[in-house]
Amino acid sequence: MDKESVDVFINQIRGFLKEEQIITDKDGMSHFCYDATEMRFMPDIVLLPCSSEEVSKIMKLASRLDLPVTPQGGRTGLSGGALPVHGGLVLSLLRMNKILEIDQKNMQIVVEPGVIAEDLQIELKKYNLFFPPDPSSTVESTLGGNVAENAGYTRAVKYGVTRDYVLGLEAVLPDGEIINIGGRTVKNVTGYDLVALLIGSEGTLAIVTKIICKVLPRPAIRKTCIMYLDDLGAAADLVVTIFGAGILPCAIEFMDSMSINCVADYLPTAESLIRRDAEALVLVEVDGNHEIATDYEARRIMDLSKGFSGVIEAKYAENDEQAEKLWRIRRDTLPALKAKGKDHLEADVVVPRYRLPFLVRAIQESVATKTVKVATFGHAGDGNLHVTIQYRKRNFAELEEANELLGDIYRKAIEMGGKLTGEHGVGITAKDYMKIQMSPAEIALMKRIKYAFDPKGILNPGKIFPEESG
Amino acid sequence: MDKESVDVFINQIRGFLKEEQIITDKDGMSHFCYDATEMRFMPDIVLLPCSSEEVSKIMKLASRLDLPVTPQGGRTGLSGGALPVHGGLVLSLLRMNKILEIDQKNMQIVVEPGVIAEDLQIELKKYNLFFPPDPSSTVESTLGGNVAENAGYTRAVKYGVTRDYVLGLEAVLPDGEIINIGGRTVKNVTGYDLVALLIGSEGTLAIVTKIICKVLPRPAIRKTCIMYLDDLGAAADLVVTIFGAGILPCAIEFMDSMSINCVADYLPTAESLIRRDAEALVLVEVDGNHEIATDYEARRIMDLSKGFSGVIEAKYAENDEQAEKLWRIRRDTLPALKAKGKDHLEADVVVPRYRLPFLVRAIQESVATKTVKVATFGHAGDGNLHVTIQYRKRNFAELEEANELLGDIYRKAIEMGGKLTGEHGVGITAKDYMKIQMSPAEIALMKRIKYAFDPKGILNPGKIFPEESG
Repeated sequence: MDKESVDVFINQIRGFLKEEQIITDKDGMSHFCYDATEMRFMPDIVLLPCSSEEVSKIMKLASRLDLPVTPQGGRTGLSGGALPVHGGLVLSLLRMNKILEIDQKNMQIVVEPGVIAEDLQIELKKYNLFFPPDPSSTVESTLGGNVAENAGYTRAVKYGVTRDYVLGLEAVLPDGEIINIGGRTVKNVTGYDLVALLIGSEGTLAIVTKIICKVLPRPAIRKTCIMYLDDLGAAADLVVTIFGAGILPCAIEFMDSMSINCVADYLPTAESLIRRDAEALVLVEVDGNHEIATDYEARRIMDLSKGFSGVIEAKYAENDEQAEKLWRIRRDTLPALKAKGKDHLEADVVVPRYRLPFLVRAIQESVATKTVKVATFGHAGDGNLHVTIQYRKRNFAELEEANELLGDIYRKAIEMGGKLTGEHGVGITAKDYMKIQMSPAEIALMKRIKYAFDPKGILNPGKIFPEESG
Repeated sequence: MDKESVDVFINQIRGFLKEEQIITDKDGMSHFCYDATEMRFMPDIVLLPCSSEEVSKIMKLASRLDLPVTPQGGRTGLSGGALPVHGGLVLSLLRMNKILEIDQKNMQIVVEPGVIAEDLQIELKKYNLFFPPDPSSTVESTLGGNVAENAGYTRAVKYGVTRDYVLGLEAVLPDGEIINIGGRTVKNVTGYDLVALLIGSEGTLAIVTKIICKVLPRPAIRKTCIMYLDDLGAAADLVVTIFGAGILPCAIEFMDSMSINCVADYLPTAESLIRRDAEALVLVEVDGNHEIATDYEARRIMDLSKGFSGVIEAKYAENDEQAEKLWRIRRDTLPALKAKGKDHLEADVVVPRYRLPFLVRAIQESVATKTVKVATFGHAGDGNLHVTIQYRKRNFAELEEANELLGDIYRKAIEMGGKLTGEHGVGITAKDYMKIQMSPAEIALMKRIKYAFDPKGILNPGKIFPEESG
């Protein structure tokens, strides 16, 4: 954007936003130019609207002037979806952070998009309720961001993802029109499901300004166990065996040998809980409301594991404190990897559940002859694998190796019936690989849908779709 | 369609379809002209393709000739969505009825759209699996139809609706292009969720030719109880109380006094189980894998009910046979109403769960002074109410009264934060009421999405959208 357009725009914006809602100085804007990918793109203006009416007015103006607009939440995204890659306007929803209603009778909540996930959980706990799709970045991630990315995380295997909980949305279209889609009913088949379409659309179709969700009674009891295995295939078989026994755990997590060892280095106090010699770790949690039943399921998992070929150790948490210690091994994986001080490329591939260990093995084989290192961990119950390539950006050979490997991982996942991304979104990190997964007709159809919402292409440009070749 | 166009089309179709796949005689076509609404619309041709390639070829030709095409499954729909209201071509998917795969390891199935819901359940039972969204018309309804309408039924309160289980679709676009969207992963955020968009789109966007679903381990134990109440409001409070106790039943069904009495007339053998003096019946079922836990939940519901103000009787099924008898009261409601020999207008409104009895009371007040009668029953756990207006079509005053009442019911539901339809779809029965629920901008947006899929408007025309006024 040239300075003149910025000035024209700001002059008009001042008609309805306060000075504190408009940021144009570099220092101020530098807080809005990055996310968890650690990439940086500077916007030309940052606006902090406080209501859907303000968002609507901003969009009417931006649409008239053809300004690119990037909606933004807590900037915890791992695919760059909230970065203003074409400059222009960042529309931060952080000030729209009110929990508007907790409706106990209907077990529903109404929130603004800037509500922090953890704040919501704390509030819901008072009513003995919980909101299951809870990403790992709860301390910073916003509900609006979770809707934009269709966040999942550990509990998805039992409770599903964000899309399974959102009943209604208020959203502002790129031309400023406010729509109210879905609502406060748990079922609704009136017309096309625009709610489902907006969820996971990565802020490219409309700006969500209000969210109506269902919530669930909080399970009273959780039981956690952890299994170390000396064989990746055995890890897959164990997961299948647990499901086959009619048990639906609320989490089944996976870590490979590299992740296990990184955490062992990072968390010396957990040394006694960690088996450095294991090829795989599987963490399983069951929850419920009845002590005997939940305990029965957990003991059943332990019994299945102890006799299982490939399991070298199985640990059962006797209480919440022990469970927390086991969970910490899994939760600290990403920080432990980052503590190694290298640069990272991350993929969030997903394959049919049973194929996950085969993908891990294929990745390990690819990387065996390379300088760069790879750690894998993720949600075994969903077949969702987070791959972290550790390399040095300034070493050209490693940079090239890392990029080649990334493409290779995407291709391998798709060959196994998988997808580019399970929960992080396409954003900018995976968009160049879209053509591996989708046919030209499918990409063209998605572009026509984008056009139906945003004919001028001003909303979150440069995301999801591969660049046109020529 | 004029006879000449029909002849041209059939000549070309004969190039790739067998004679037995083409029906053009009135007698043969009369089997494809109705559904559960009892309305009738004759097509010009009926085709029975056996593969997605055949569907694709048919659509390429129909698109070139601008022929209206209405996809059709088991014709159990209650909103007329599968009726060829503009004549043209009926594309019946009944011959694409293969269960292609039951993948136990990943707990997924792949089926063709013509598979009958009950046939699937019987097959899944052999593997100790089940497919939760199971409409009442399982004996005839097809999976393709359930996808088109996003079918729900009794288990939705715990297990969700069809959209919650479908992971991937193969579909043929109106121009004949075959797309493969979603897939065999339980999570996937690559691009827009076209799978979610197609589900519930009532066959107006694309023709589904293959369905990939997740399935669940079959719960081993079910416990059923039934409560009779002398007050509608108390029924709502009871439902809230059950949820509030942290219990998530797999069914919470509701019947009003008129429905209860109709079933009592229809099922004299059930007389001893029915309280004719009740204002409301609430049937609750819990399921699980652990006898003690499931029994505990059911007993807890009985304890809550027995002390509950407004409950005049609570019955507990001691075994499966008794449970089946209780369920029969609810399941036979629609046949019992139909046995009264009157004409029917049906609505499938849905309101926030707690408001359901208030809607019932409002409807009862509206109808008190009228000649026509109204029965209400449905899914109390979802706030989804099936309303049956009983009238005589040939009595003009009653016809007018019934139509007025229908509009009134839709308006009341929407005033209470509800929607036109919870699980039956808009089709042709509710489309004239769309403007009560949706703003012009919302309808226009849905039309632009329709256009993105079907620019010529040949696929299932005359459905969902209200007729243009002039």
